[in-house]
Amino acid sequence: MKIVIIGAGGDVGRSVADELARGGKHEIIRVGRTQGDYQVDIASDDSVGALFKKIGQIDAIIATAGNVILAPIEKMTAADFNKGLQDKLLSQVRVALVGQHYLNDGGSITLTSGIAVDDPIAQGSNAAASNAGIEGFVRAAACDLSRGIRINAVSPTVLTESMDRFGPYFPGYESVPATRVAMAYRRSVEGVQSGRVYRVGH
Amino acid sequence: MKIVIIGAGGDVGRSVADELARGGKHEIIRVGRTQGDYQVDIASDDSVGALFKKIGQIDAIIATAGNVILAPIEKMTAADFNKGLQDKLLSQVRVALVGQHYLNDGGSITLTSGIAVDDPIAQGSNAAASNAGIEGFVRAAACDLSRGIRINAVSPTVLTESMDRFGPYFPGYESVPATRVAMAYRRSVEGVQSGRVYRVGH
Repeated sequence: MKIVIIGAGGDVGRSVADELARGGKHEIIRVGRTQGDYQVDIASDDSVGALFKKIGQIDAIIATAGNVILAPIEKMTAADFNKGLQDKLLSQVRVALVGQHYLNDGGSITLTSGIAVDDPIAQGSNAAASNAGIEGFVRAAACDLSRGIRINAVSPTVLTESMDRFGPYFPGYESVPATRVAMAYRRSVEGVQSGRVYRVGH
Repeated sequence: MKIVIIGAGGDVGRSVADELARGGKHEIIRVGRTQGDYQVDIASDDSVGALFKKIGQIDAIIATAGNVILAPIEKMTAADFNKGLQDKLLSQVRVALVGQHYLNDGGSITLTSGIAVDDPIAQGSNAAASNAGIEGFVRAAACDLSRGIRINAVSPTVLTESMDRFGPYFPGYESVPATRVAMAYRRSVEGVQSGRVYRVGH
Protein backbone atom coordinates (compact mmCIF):
# COMPACT_ATOMS: atom_id res chain seq x y z
CA MET A 1 0.00 0.00 0.00
CA LYS A 2 1.03 3.59 -0.62
CA ILE A 3 0.60 5.35 2.73
CA VAL A 4 0.87 9.08 3.47
CA ILE A 5 1.69 10.04 7.07
CA ILE A 6 1.05 13.70 7.90
CA GLY A 7 2.83 14.64 11.11
CA ALA A 8 5.67 12.19 10.50
CA GLY A 9 8.15 14.42 12.36
CA GLY A 10 6.29 14.08 15.69
CA ASP A 11 6.67 11.39 18.35
CA VAL A 12 3.60 9.47 17.21
CA GLY A 13 4.03 10.01 13.47
CA ARG A 14 7.67 8.90 13.45
CA SER A 15 6.80 5.66 15.26
CA VAL A 16 3.87 5.00 12.96
CA ALA A 17 6.09 5.53 9.91
CA ASP A 18 8.76 3.19 11.32
CA GLU A 19 6.16 0.54 12.28
CA LEU A 20 4.49 0.54 8.85
CA ALA A 21 7.84 0.60 7.02
CA ARG A 22 8.95 -2.62 8.73
CA GLY A 23 8.74 -5.65 6.43
CA GLY A 24 8.90 -3.50 3.35
CA LYS A 25 5.37 -4.22 2.15
CA HIS A 26 4.23 -0.60 2.17
CA GLU A 27 5.51 2.53 0.47
CA ILE A 28 5.64 5.20 3.19
CA ILE A 29 5.48 8.91 2.39
CA ARG A 30 6.54 11.05 5.34
CA VAL A 31 5.03 14.53 5.49
CA GLY A 32 5.82 17.22 8.05
CA ARG A 33 5.49 20.94 8.53
CA THR A 34 9.19 21.51 7.80
CA GLN A 35 10.67 18.00 7.44
CA GLY A 36 9.98 14.78 5.56
CA ASP A 37 9.52 13.80 1.92
CA TYR A 38 6.97 16.60 1.49
CA GLN A 39 5.95 19.63 3.56
CA VAL A 40 2.43 20.84 4.28
CA ASP A 41 0.51 23.39 6.32
CA ILE A 42 -2.61 21.48 7.32
CA ALA A 43 -4.32 24.74 8.31
CA SER A 44 -4.45 25.67 4.61
CA ASP A 45 -6.76 24.16 1.97
CA ASP A 46 -4.36 25.21 -0.77
CA SER A 47 -1.36 23.60 0.92
CA VAL A 48 -3.21 20.32 1.61
CA GLY A 49 -4.64 20.28 -1.92
CA ALA A 50 -1.20 20.87 -3.45
CA LEU A 51 0.30 18.07 -1.32
CA PHE A 52 -2.15 15.41 -2.48
CA LYS A 53 -1.93 16.60 -6.08
CA LYS A 54 1.86 16.14 -5.98
CA ILE A 55 1.66 12.69 -4.34
CA GLY A 56 -1.18 11.37 -6.52
CA GLN A 57 -3.36 8.31 -5.85
CA ILE A 58 -2.80 6.57 -2.51
CA ASP A 59 -4.20 3.77 -0.37
CA ALA A 60 -4.05 5.21 3.13
CA ILE A 61 -3.87 8.60 4.84
CA ILE A 62 -2.73 8.96 8.43
CA ALA A 63 -2.85 12.30 10.28
CA THR A 64 -1.02 12.62 13.58
CA ALA A 65 -0.53 16.41 13.48
CA GLY A 66 -2.31 19.26 15.27
CA ASN A 67 -2.11 20.96 18.64
CA VAL A 68 -4.76 21.81 21.20
CA ILE A 69 -4.77 24.73 23.64
CA LEU A 70 -4.25 23.90 27.33
CA ALA A 71 -5.58 26.66 29.60
CA PRO A 72 -7.69 27.01 32.75
CA ILE A 73 -11.30 27.48 31.73
CA GLU A 74 -11.60 30.70 33.71
CA LYS A 75 -8.87 32.27 31.57
CA MET A 76 -9.83 30.66 28.26
CA THR A 77 -11.19 33.02 25.60
CA ALA A 78 -13.27 32.03 22.60
CA ALA A 79 -10.40 33.19 20.36
CA ASP A 80 -7.92 30.87 22.12
CA PHE A 81 -10.44 28.06 22.05
CA ASN A 82 -10.90 28.54 18.32
CA LYS A 83 -7.13 28.29 17.76
CA GLY A 84 -7.21 24.75 19.12
CA LEU A 85 -10.30 23.86 17.10
CA GLN A 86 -8.64 25.15 13.93
CA ASP A 87 -5.22 23.63 14.56
CA LYS A 88 -6.32 20.15 15.58
CA LEU A 89 -9.98 19.40 14.80
CA LEU A 90 -10.50 21.31 11.57
CA SER A 91 -6.99 20.58 10.25
CA GLN A 92 -7.39 16.82 10.64
CA VAL A 93 -10.88 17.03 9.12
CA ARG A 94 -9.39 19.05 6.23
CA VAL A 95 -6.84 16.28 5.57
CA ALA A 96 -9.74 13.80 5.40
CA LEU A 97 -12.03 15.99 3.27
CA VAL A 98 -9.35 16.89 0.72
CA GLY A 99 -7.53 13.56 0.86
CA GLN A 100 -10.62 11.37 0.29
CA HIS A 101 -10.59 12.36 -3.39
CA TYR A 102 -7.08 10.94 -3.84
CA LEU A 103 -7.80 7.59 -2.17
CA ASN A 104 -8.11 4.42 -4.21
CA ASP A 105 -11.30 2.37 -3.69
CA GLY A 106 -11.07 0.54 -0.38
CA GLY A 107 -8.56 3.06 0.99
CA SER A 108 -8.49 4.33 4.55
CA ILE A 109 -8.12 7.47 6.64
CA THR A 110 -6.80 7.37 10.21
CA LEU A 111 -6.98 10.46 12.41
CA THR A 112 -5.67 11.07 15.93
CA SER A 113 -7.64 12.12 19.01
CA GLY A 114 -6.44 11.63 22.60
CA ILE A 115 -7.25 10.48 26.10
CA ALA A 116 -8.52 13.87 27.30
CA VAL A 117 -11.96 13.11 25.81
CA ASP A 118 -12.85 10.21 28.08
CA ASP A 119 -10.72 11.15 31.01
CA PRO A 120 -10.64 14.94 31.42
CA ILE A 121 -7.49 16.66 32.64
CA ALA A 122 -7.04 20.07 34.26
CA GLN A 123 -7.02 22.87 31.67
CA GLY A 124 -8.32 20.29 29.19
CA SER A 125 -11.62 21.74 27.92
CA ASN A 126 -10.20 22.59 24.48
CA ALA A 127 -8.36 19.28 24.20
CA ALA A 128 -11.55 17.40 25.05
CA ALA A 129 -13.68 19.37 22.59
CA SER A 130 -11.15 19.09 19.74
CA ASN A 131 -10.53 15.39 20.25
CA ALA A 132 -14.21 14.56 20.81
CA GLY A 133 -14.97 16.45 17.59
CA ILE A 134 -12.50 14.26 15.70
CA GLU A 135 -14.08 11.11 17.16
CA GLY A 136 -17.61 12.31 16.29
CA PHE A 137 -16.48 13.14 12.77
CA VAL A 138 -14.93 9.70 12.30
CA ARG A 139 -18.03 7.86 13.52
CA ALA A 140 -20.34 9.77 11.19
CA ALA A 141 -17.99 10.00 8.20
CA ALA A 142 -17.63 6.21 8.27
CA CYS A 143 -21.36 5.95 7.47
CA ASP A 144 -21.20 8.61 4.77
CA LEU A 145 -18.09 7.60 2.78
CA SER A 146 -18.47 5.48 -0.36
CA ARG A 147 -16.16 3.36 -2.57
CA GLY A 148 -15.29 1.19 0.43
CA ILE A 149 -13.26 3.97 2.02
CA ARG A 150 -12.86 3.46 5.76
CA ILE A 151 -12.08 6.00 8.50
CA ASN A 152 -10.95 5.49 12.11
CA ALA A 153 -9.23 7.39 14.89
CA VAL A 154 -6.51 6.42 17.34
CA SER A 155 -6.79 7.84 20.86
CA PRO A 156 -3.52 7.41 22.76
CA THR A 157 -2.95 8.20 26.41
CA VAL A 158 0.12 10.33 27.21
CA LEU A 159 3.25 9.06 25.43
CA THR A 160 6.29 7.91 27.37
CA GLU A 161 8.35 10.02 24.95
CA SER A 162 6.29 13.14 25.82
CA MET A 163 6.37 12.81 29.62
CA ASP A 164 8.93 15.59 30.02
CA ARG A 165 6.58 18.06 28.33
CA PHE A 166 3.12 16.74 29.22
CA GLY A 167 3.69 14.57 32.31
CA PRO A 168 2.53 17.28 34.76
CA TYR A 169 -0.87 17.38 33.02
CA PHE A 170 -1.32 13.63 33.55
CA PRO A 171 -0.68 12.89 37.25
CA GLY A 172 -0.87 9.16 37.93
CA TYR A 173 -1.53 8.26 34.31
CA GLU A 174 0.46 5.32 32.96
CA SER A 175 2.21 6.42 29.77
CA VAL A 176 2.61 4.20 26.70
CA PRO A 177 5.60 4.05 24.35
CA ALA A 178 5.01 5.41 20.85
CA THR A 179 5.83 1.98 19.42
CA ARG A 180 2.69 0.59 21.08
CA VAL A 181 0.54 3.48 19.85
CA ALA A 182 1.87 2.85 16.34
CA MET A 183 0.32 -0.64 16.33
CA ALA A 184 -3.19 0.87 16.49
CA TYR A 185 -2.52 2.74 13.24
CA ARG A 186 -1.48 -0.53 11.59
CA ARG A 187 -4.72 -2.06 12.86
CA SER A 188 -6.70 0.76 11.25
CA VAL A 189 -4.78 0.72 7.94
CA GLU A 190 -4.53 -3.03 7.40
CA GLY A 191 -7.82 -4.01 9.10
CA VAL A 192 -11.40 -3.94 7.83
CA GLN A 193 -13.18 -1.83 10.46
CA SER A 194 -14.56 1.68 10.01
CA GLY A 195 -15.93 4.33 12.37
CA ARG A 196 -13.85 2.97 15.24
CA VAL A 197 -11.85 4.83 17.90
CA TYR A 198 -8.86 2.70 18.94
CA ARG A 199 -7.93 3.63 22.49
CA VAL A 200 -4.33 2.87 23.49
CA GLY A 201 -3.32 2.77 27.14
CA HIS A 202 -6.76 3.78 28.44
CA MET B 1 -33.25 31.38 40.20
CA LYS B 2 -32.48 33.91 37.50
CA ILE B 3 -32.14 31.90 34.28
CA VAL B 4 -30.97 33.13 30.87
CA ILE B 5 -32.12 31.09 27.86
CA ILE B 6 -30.20 31.82 24.65
CA GLY B 7 -32.10 30.49 21.65
CA ALA B 8 -35.49 31.03 23.29
CA GLY B 9 -37.15 31.62 19.90
CA GLY B 10 -36.41 28.08 18.68
CA ASP B 11 -38.48 24.93 19.18
CA VAL B 12 -36.33 23.66 22.05
CA GLY B 13 -35.63 27.03 23.66
CA ARG B 14 -39.29 28.07 23.72
CA SER B 15 -40.30 24.81 25.43
CA VAL B 16 -37.47 25.10 27.94
CA ALA B 17 -38.52 28.65 28.77
CA ASP B 18 -42.15 27.61 29.20
CA GLU B 19 -41.20 24.57 31.31
CA LEU B 20 -38.96 26.54 33.67
CA ALA B 21 -41.46 29.42 33.92
CA ARG B 22 -44.18 27.09 35.21
CA GLY B 23 -44.76 27.43 38.96
CA GLY B 24 -43.28 30.90 39.00
CA LYS B 25 -40.23 30.03 41.08
CA HIS B 26 -37.71 31.17 38.45
CA GLU B 27 -37.12 34.45 36.68
CA ILE B 28 -36.74 33.59 32.99
CA ILE B 29 -34.84 35.84 30.57
CA ARG B 30 -35.55 34.93 26.95
CA VAL B 31 -32.78 35.78 24.48
CA GLY B 32 -32.93 35.31 20.71
CA ARG B 33 -31.18 36.46 17.58
CA THR B 34 -34.04 38.86 16.71
CA GLN B 35 -36.72 38.18 19.35
CA GLY B 36 -37.08 37.89 23.13
CA ASP B 37 -36.22 40.12 26.08
CA TYR B 38 -32.71 40.64 24.71
CA GLN B 39 -31.02 39.97 21.38
CA VAL B 40 -27.58 38.48 20.81
CA ASP B 41 -25.29 37.22 18.06
CA ILE B 42 -23.57 34.25 19.69
CA ALA B 43 -20.93 34.23 16.95
CA SER B 44 -19.58 37.51 18.40
CA ASP B 45 -17.57 37.93 21.61
CA ASP B 46 -18.64 41.58 21.83
CA SER B 47 -22.32 40.77 21.45
CA VAL B 48 -22.24 37.96 24.04
CA GLY B 49 -20.21 40.12 26.43
CA ALA B 50 -22.63 43.03 26.06
CA LEU B 51 -25.59 40.72 26.69
CA PHE B 52 -24.31 39.40 30.02
CA LYS B 53 -23.20 42.87 31.09
CA LYS B 54 -26.73 44.17 30.54
CA ILE B 55 -28.36 41.23 32.35
CA GLY B 56 -25.94 41.16 35.28
CA GLN B 57 -25.46 38.32 37.79
CA ILE B 58 -27.43 35.15 37.12
CA ASP B 59 -27.87 31.59 38.41
CA ALA B 60 -28.20 29.56 35.22
CA ILE B 61 -27.32 29.83 31.54
CA ILE B 62 -28.99 27.66 28.93
CA ALA B 63 -27.91 27.68 25.27
CA THR B 64 -30.13 25.99 22.68
CA ALA B 65 -28.93 28.00 19.67
CA GLY B 66 -26.59 27.15 16.81
CA ASN B 67 -26.81 25.34 13.49
CA VAL B 68 -24.70 22.60 11.95
CA ILE B 69 -24.02 21.99 8.24
CA LEU B 70 -25.66 18.93 6.68
CA ALA B 71 -23.87 17.83 3.50
CA PRO B 72 -22.58 14.63 1.88
CA ILE B 73 -18.98 14.11 2.94
CA GLU B 74 -17.82 13.90 -0.68
CA LYS B 75 -19.07 17.44 -1.30
CA MET B 76 -18.15 18.92 2.10
CA THR B 77 -15.34 21.49 2.07
CA ALA B 78 -13.25 22.54 5.06
CA ALA B 79 -14.78 26.02 4.78
CA ASP B 80 -18.33 24.64 5.02
CA PHE B 81 -17.28 22.36 7.85
CA ASN B 82 -15.83 25.31 9.71
CA LYS B 83 -19.12 27.23 9.38
CA GLY B 84 -20.85 24.51 11.39
CA LEU B 85 -18.04 24.40 13.95
CA GLN B 86 -18.24 28.17 14.39
CA ASP B 87 -22.02 28.44 14.46
CA LYS B 88 -22.76 25.59 16.85
CA LEU B 89 -19.68 24.33 18.72
CA LEU B 90 -17.68 27.52 19.19
CA SER B 91 -20.78 29.70 19.72
CA GLN B 92 -22.09 27.52 22.55
CA VAL B 93 -18.60 27.34 24.04
CA ARG B 94 -18.39 31.15 23.78
CA VAL B 95 -21.64 31.49 25.75
CA ALA B 96 -20.11 29.28 28.46
CA LEU B 97 -16.69 30.98 28.49
CA VAL B 98 -18.09 34.52 28.65
CA GLY B 99 -21.12 33.67 30.77
CA GLN B 100 -19.19 31.82 33.52
CA HIS B 101 -17.96 35.17 34.84
CA TYR B 102 -21.54 36.36 35.43
CA LEU B 103 -22.70 33.22 37.26
CA ASN B 104 -23.30 33.26 41.00
CA ASP B 105 -21.49 30.58 43.03
CA GLY B 106 -23.22 27.25 42.50
CA GLY B 107 -24.66 28.38 39.19
CA SER B 108 -24.99 26.19 36.12
CA ILE B 109 -24.47 26.13 32.36
CA THR B 110 -26.49 23.83 30.09
CA LEU B 111 -25.54 23.43 26.44
CA THR B 112 -27.24 21.49 23.63
CA SER B 113 -25.75 18.71 21.49
CA GLY B 114 -27.84 16.18 19.54
CA ILE B 115 -28.40 12.55 18.61
CA ALA B 116 -26.14 12.62 15.54
CA VAL B 117 -23.10 11.98 17.78
CA ASP B 118 -24.05 8.52 18.96
CA ASP B 119 -26.19 7.53 16.05
CA PRO B 120 -24.76 8.97 12.83
CA ILE B 121 -27.08 10.11 10.04
CA ALA B 122 -26.40 10.58 6.32
CA GLN B 123 -24.66 13.89 5.61
CA GLY B 124 -24.03 14.13 9.36
CA SER B 125 -20.25 14.38 9.71
CA ASN B 126 -20.34 18.06 10.69
CA ALA B 127 -23.30 17.56 13.04
CA ALA B 128 -21.48 14.69 14.75
CA ALA B 129 -18.22 16.63 15.11
CA SER B 130 -19.91 19.80 16.39
CA ASN B 131 -22.12 17.98 18.86
CA ALA B 132 -19.37 15.64 20.03
CA GLY B 133 -17.18 18.70 20.58
CA ILE B 134 -19.84 20.22 22.82
CA GLU B 135 -20.10 17.00 24.81
CA GLY B 136 -16.31 16.73 25.17
CA PHE B 137 -16.13 20.35 26.28
CA VAL B 138 -18.84 19.81 28.90
CA ARG B 139 -17.17 16.71 30.35
CA ALA B 140 -13.80 18.44 30.73
CA ALA B 141 -15.10 21.88 31.72
CA ALA B 142 -17.03 20.26 34.59
CA CYS B 143 -13.68 19.20 36.08
CA ASP B 144 -12.09 22.60 35.52
CA LEU B 145 -14.79 25.01 36.75
CA SER B 146 -14.63 26.36 40.30
CA ARG B 147 -17.04 28.12 42.72
CA GLY B 148 -19.42 25.14 42.49
CA ILE B 149 -20.37 26.01 38.94
CA ARG B 150 -21.81 23.01 37.09
CA ILE B 151 -22.03 22.34 33.36
CA ASN B 152 -24.06 19.75 31.42
CA ALA B 153 -25.41 19.14 27.93
CA VAL B 154 -28.76 17.91 26.66
CA SER B 155 -28.72 15.67 23.58
CA PRO B 156 -32.20 15.37 22.11
CA THR B 157 -33.22 13.09 19.24
CA VAL B 158 -35.19 14.73 16.41
CA LEU B 159 -38.06 16.86 17.72
CA THR B 160 -41.66 16.10 16.82
CA GLU B 161 -42.04 19.81 16.08
CA SER B 162 -39.11 19.70 13.60
CA MET B 163 -40.17 16.59 11.66
CA ASP B 164 -41.36 18.61 8.66
CA ARG B 165 -37.86 20.06 8.23
CA PHE B 166 -35.59 17.30 9.53
CA GLY B 167 -37.71 14.13 9.32
CA PRO B 168 -36.12 12.93 6.06
CA TYR B 169 -32.68 12.94 7.75
CA PHE B 170 -33.97 10.63 10.50
CA PRO B 171 -35.70 7.65 8.81
CA GLY B 172 -37.25 5.34 11.39
CA TYR B 173 -36.22 7.50 14.34
CA GLU B 174 -38.90 8.08 16.98
CA SER B 175 -39.25 11.82 17.54
CA VAL B 176 -39.83 13.40 20.96
CA PRO B 177 -41.99 16.43 21.75
CA ALA B 178 -40.10 19.55 22.84
CA THR B 179 -41.94 19.46 26.17
CA ARG B 180 -40.15 16.21 27.00
CA VAL B 181 -36.77 17.58 25.94
CA ALA B 182 -37.39 20.61 28.16
CA MET B 183 -37.49 18.39 31.24
CA ALA B 184 -33.82 17.47 30.77
CA TYR B 185 -32.87 21.15 31.01
CA ARG B 186 -34.80 21.40 34.29
CA ARG B 187 -32.89 18.36 35.50
CA SER B 188 -29.59 20.06 34.66
CA VAL B 189 -30.54 23.45 36.16
CA GLU B 190 -32.22 22.28 39.36
CA GLY B 191 -30.12 19.12 39.90
CA VAL B 192 -26.67 18.62 41.38
CA GLN B 193 -24.82 16.78 38.62
CA SER B 194 -22.03 18.13 36.43
CA GLY B 195 -20.26 16.92 33.31
CA ARG B 196 -23.30 14.91 32.25
CA VAL B 197 -24.88 14.52 28.81
CA TYR B 198 -28.62 14.00 29.20
CA ARG B 199 -29.88 12.01 26.21
CA VAL B 200 -33.58 12.40 25.43
CA GLY B 201 -35.33 9.91 23.18
CA HIS B 202 -32.20 7.89 22.42
